[in-house]
Amino acid sequence: MPIKPDLKLMQAAIDVAVLNKTPFGAVLAMGDEIFVTAANQTKSLSDPTAHAELLAIRKLAGHLQKTDLSGFTLYTTCEPCPMCMSAAIWAKVDGIIYGCSIGAISEFMDQINVRSEYMNKFALKQVKITGGFMENECYNLLRWYS
Amino acid sequence: MPIKPDLKLMQAAIDVAVLNKTPFGAVLAMGDEIFVTAANQTKSLSDPTAHAELLAIRKLAGHLQKTDLSGFTLYTTCEPCPMCMSAAIWAKVDGIIYGCSIGAISEFMDQINVRSEYMNKFALKQVKITGGFMENECYNLLRWYS
Repeated sequence: MPIKPDLKLMQAAIDVAVLNKTPFGAVLAMGDEIFVTAANQTKSLSDPTAHAELLAIRKLAGHLQKTDLSGFTLYTTCEPCPMCMSAAIWAKVDGIIYGCSIGAISEFMDQINVRSEYMNKFALKQVKITGGFMENECYNLLRWYS
Repeated sequence: MPIKPDLKLMQAAIDVAVLNKTPFGAVLAMGDEIFVTAANQTKSLSDPTAHAELLAIRKLAGHLQKTDLSGFTLYTTCEPCPMCMSAAIWAKVDGIIYGCSIGAISEFMDQINVRSEYMNKFALKQVKITGGFMENECYNLLRWYS
């Protein structure tokens, strides 16, 4: 059964991105309840892996003291890169809802990101992926902060 | 020019794996100098992203206070998963030397890992990948600790 995207949850991902002046925000939610938010912090943390999605996964797993995030849905303003997609698969999230595709600003990024769909075929469990949710609002983040 | 694999550096990756009783150890080195080592800590840290390679990248980037790890080579006992491969690409490491392929123990893992080669085609720069270095020693880790 597809996961019904929730405007309020994506808005929270957009809000945390704006707060951090980055195009990339993420939320992990169960039902309509937000558990964690995170924004890209690669520069501020000097950490090339500190993408919003990865940070959200690490934060929630740390809070819950478990690596299995079944039951949670990842909202992210931008289509996850293969690192973040793999992290979501390892964490066994139920689904991923993303806003815009980063391919909008970079041909390379589109190429690296299309792996997402392919990788999903081999997921430990079928992660449900929905793209283009609140796409214009998320695309505006890329225009403002890239 | 291919990177010449160094027995001493892979042995350090094996040693840190053994020390942590996990099949997965990683080293980041420049020339023949080891800068950081890390072992898989997904369970001990309750972090599904705490693979050896990702931890090594985060540790070194944090030490150096920069996200660009050009000039470094990543040694890892096992073929990196797509998350770790992507992290290495984002970090712009020069090359990756790995021991055994995890496909040896799991058909699924082999499938998810074959993405590595494909992704590499789209790398920000061409990351040089060498597999099967000290393969038997690394495969023993999988047998002992999986």
